[in-house]
Amino acid sequence: MDFDAFDRRSFLGVAGGALICTIAGQKYQLNSEKDVRRASAALPVPPKVKAGRDNPTVTKAAVAGNRKEYWIQAEEVTWNYVPTKKDQMMNTKLKVGKTAAASYAYRQYSADFAQPLGPATIPGPLIDATVGDTVVVHFRNACSLPVTMHPHGIFYSAEMDGAYKGYYTDPGGFVQRGRTFTYVWECPEGTQGTWLYHDHGPMDPLPLFRGLYGPMIIRDPDEPLPDREYFLGFATASPAYLPTLKTSLFTINGRAYTGNTPSMTANVGDDVAMHVYGIDNDFHTFHVHGHRWKENGVVIDNKTFGPGDSFRVRFIEDNPGRWLYHCHVFSHLHQGMSGWYNVS
Amino acid sequence: MDFDAFDRRSFLGVAGGALICTIAGQKYQLNSEKDVRRASAALPVPPKVKAGRDNPTVTKAAVAGNRKEYWIQAEEVTWNYVPTKKDQMMNTKLKVGKTAAASYAYRQYSADFAQPLGPATIPGPLIDATVGDTVVVHFRNACSLPVTMHPHGIFYSAEMDGAYKGYYTDPGGFVQRGRTFTYVWECPEGTQGTWLYHDHGPMDPLPLFRGLYGPMIIRDPDEPLPDREYFLGFATASPAYLPTLKTSLFTINGRAYTGNTPSMTANVGDDVAMHVYGIDNDFHTFHVHGHRWKENGVVIDNKTFGPGDSFRVRFIEDNPGRWLYHCHVFSHLHQGMSGWYNVS
Amino acid sequence: MDFDAFDRRSFLGVAGGALICTIAGQKYQLNSEKDVRRASAALPVPPKVKAGRDNPTVTKAAVAGNRKEYWIQAEEVTWNYVPTKKDQMMNTKLKVGKTAAASYAYRQYSADFAQPLGPATIPGPLIDATVGDTVVVHFRNACSLPVTMHPHGIFYSAEMDGAYKGYYTDPGGFVQRGRTFTYVWECPEGTQGTWLYHDHGPMDPLPLFRGLYGPMIIRDPDEPLPDREYFLGFATASPAYLPTLKTSLFTINGRAYTGNTPSMTANVGDDVAMHVYGIDNDFHTFHVHGHRWKENGVVIDNKTFGPGDSFRVRFIEDNPGRWLYHCHVFSHLHQGMSGWYNVS
Repeated sequence: MDFDAFDRRSFLGVAGGALICTIAGQKYQLNSEKDVRRASAALPVPPKVKAGRDNPTVTKAAVAGNRKEYWIQAEEVTWNYVPTKKDQMMNTKLKVGKTAAASYAYRQYSADFAQPLGPATIPGPLIDATVGDTVVVHFRNACSLPVTMHPHGIFYSAEMDGAYKGYYTDPGGFVQRGRTFTYVWECPEGTQGTWLYHDHGPMDPLPLFRGLYGPMIIRDPDEPLPDREYFLGFATASPAYLPTLKTSLFTINGRAYTGNTPSMTANVGDDVAMHVYGIDNDFHTFHVHGHRWKENGVVIDNKTFGPGDSFRVRFIEDNPGRWLYHCHVFSHLHQGMSGWYNVS
Repeated sequence: MDFDAFDRRSFLGVAGGALICTIAGQKYQLNSEKDVRRASAALPVPPKVKAGRDNPTVTKAAVAGNRKEYWIQAEEVTWNYVPTKKDQMMNTKLKVGKTAAASYAYRQYSADFAQPLGPATIPGPLIDATVGDTVVVHFRNACSLPVTMHPHGIFYSAEMDGAYKGYYTDPGGFVQRGRTFTYVWECPEGTQGTWLYHDHGPMDPLPLFRGLYGPMIIRDPDEPLPDREYFLGFATASPAYLPTLKTSLFTINGRAYTGNTPSMTANVGDDVAMHVYGIDNDFHTFHVHGHRWKENGVVIDNKTFGPGDSFRVRFIEDNPGRWLYHCHVFSHLHQGMSGWYNVS
Repeated sequence: MDFDAFDRRSFLGVAGGALICTIAGQKYQLNSEKDVRRASAALPVPPKVKAGRDNPTVTKAAVAGNRKEYWIQAEEVTWNYVPTKKDQMMNTKLKVGKTAAASYAYRQYSADFAQPLGPATIPGPLIDATVGDTVVVHFRNACSLPVTMHPHGIFYSAEMDGAYKGYYTDPGGFVQRGRTFTYVWECPEGTQGTWLYHDHGPMDPLPLFRGLYGPMIIRDPDEPLPDREYFLGFATASPAYLPTLKTSLFTINGRAYTGNTPSMTANVGDDVAMHVYGIDNDFHTFHVHGHRWKENGVVIDNKTFGPGDSFRVRFIEDNPGRWLYHCHVFSHLHQGMSGWYNVS
């Protein structure tokens, strides 16, 4: 198919319970992995991707500074968004129907993809760098559809942005099944912070809403490491994108409801960091019971954030007990967006 | 009933105009106070609550620093969200149907609940403390369902958080009808700010969405008092939780539409503080006509905030006239979220 | 009609595809310009407007400091929200139905309305002032309904706020078809910043949601000018207010989808300013690929903002290539809220 036909795809949303997209004028369902495979096969390949597909020279990039190297694969996974089927906050056995769904997840491997370092997880593995480092991510796609890794915050050249850009797409913005792309990202002064990465490929936001996102940190070398740190990704798991779900589940790190979401722990006296990001269509707030922190000299205990936002909360732990942390949007809280924070 | 049965309640939302919840597998309507009473009777009592219910030692806590003592009762009240039935901003006689609804409200009493210090109000009474104080709130519940007081920003031990936590619930997180609990909260350095308190009991968010929230301030002793100050709680009054309402009313301090919401006043030269908080499922912005203020050195006249957020706007009044203040979300503004600010 | 009858108008929202409002107890459709004319004729004229309508003395105000004078007319215009019918980001020929709609727009004229300085545009012309200036806007209304100009951030007396305030409305808050009002606004120290202006008349938000908004800047004289600057207004174009549209279009500067929205450009080394504001019912985030900036010492690349918020992003350009900028709410992004930023 001629890429210049200028008729790629647009999601038509959910029709009769089925997620539909149009590619080159033809409609495709996107419910099962078979559907996704069929739709993906119809996607025209952008010209720069076509030219670059057998040209792995990008993976031989000279790398400045300290090299932080990752091997990450995007995989199909059945993910259970509420493994316990219970909500400890409400002491409730949940009646939310099936909570497992065909999803996608990033999975970390040892060098040269020799072996997985653990299961595929939602969110994906932490990318952990320090100002001065160069991050090299060898990315392999084992999903049926083209997906990518697009990072926030870190410095990268335009070919390394992992974003589908139509005609102008670089090879890293359209990584097909079975193919590898090596992203080289840099951490100069001015990139320090709490960040995230996520798919930004031609089927966006489908793969992301099925799990392709993860946390990244670029540490300031002049700042002491915290004693404890947690990375918390806030995202809605929606039946529109995960058709086996019966209801929207408001997840933290891919799990909904207290006892399923991360149970954080700390000791009194610990220097605690919580790294929070949002990655769905909703706005959230982050609230921790019994704790507060300073933002620009103002004391707060609740913070609004939107999709793509990421921030760090940091305090010296001074308050033992069993605490709740949660999104303070009540409808989100009561659909799963809460967890325990236990301080000894 | 065995509390470990792990089958508490989950709201099923509105079905056929009736708010429904499930407790221990059985459905209960929550529309009338009689419904609420029946549902509440079915709520199993958490073990620590059961053990503590005849043990009032918590009320005898030693209190450090200056003691700020409050007697506050949660009551059933019929609240009129639009008493004038008019919108002065639009010079409109409103056609929004019945605007009174069976609600809940906190009410302040004199020492030992001798007598009320005024009517029950939405929001509840201001809790006003200064860094170094200890706040002691003798809380009594006169509502049919268990409710609580959960504060933001102030320091409190885990037993004093006023939050329902399922099996782990402390007595202050499940205060039954006719019972009293004394919350002891502290104001060390690092708690100063504009805060709020609200129900966080086992039926959350029902009691809160029917009115159980209020403002709190912890003053910095090194900062001069303003000449005028106002506390403004932004919250949606929704027919889903207030079934006699015909439409959502976007309220400030429990009232919707200009002339019903607070009409603030000031004189030129006054040091004016406006304390704003959000306590519903929505995000809002706070905008004052003809005025601006600095936030971290940047001049703004409009500020986004979410549920649980609270902040202070402060400026020296320099602009006489009749001004509007409002949420800049147009659909909220035109459903009641605006008021007068009159400067002489 | 007696203005004191206190029965002005309230939008009843969309009924059967038609936008309906009530004025003095009678229903009016607002779809066609003829509808709007009929509804507007029924609007009672506020007393101060009636008294002031033949009294143009307000236009002779003494003006302090440097005078920045504008002649701006509000006009009816057919606006195409997606002129190319394509989305370059997705390389998609869009199937979104008719994308042109009867709209309103501000248009800049030369002195004394001698001649237009270009077409009417959504958003309207930039109002560009510096601290110390006085801005004088001669505003003329050529639309069928009364409209106004209400500014953010700048200093203005209550009669100059351009806001409908029911009985208390000043002449500048109700400018009828064919009439002129001269707004005098001042820029003392403490007003510097990125701002906006918009209609705040008696039919608010209809005229605004059909295009009556624009950018304003008050420059700090001590700050160097950027090499490049862009003003970006984020707003939903909704079929509820633009009935010829078939679907909501999420626009930046009145255009939806990459290739229609502003294509910004810069050179490496440029001092670049992006001025962003939101002016609809939605919350958005602003994200630029491959770039980041500091806010209060924290590095960010994504920022949440709400209706009425305005802010400036500024950085020294260091990263050549073709970049996307977009709202990170995925449903907004994929309904048009993205654009190119090309750096040489």
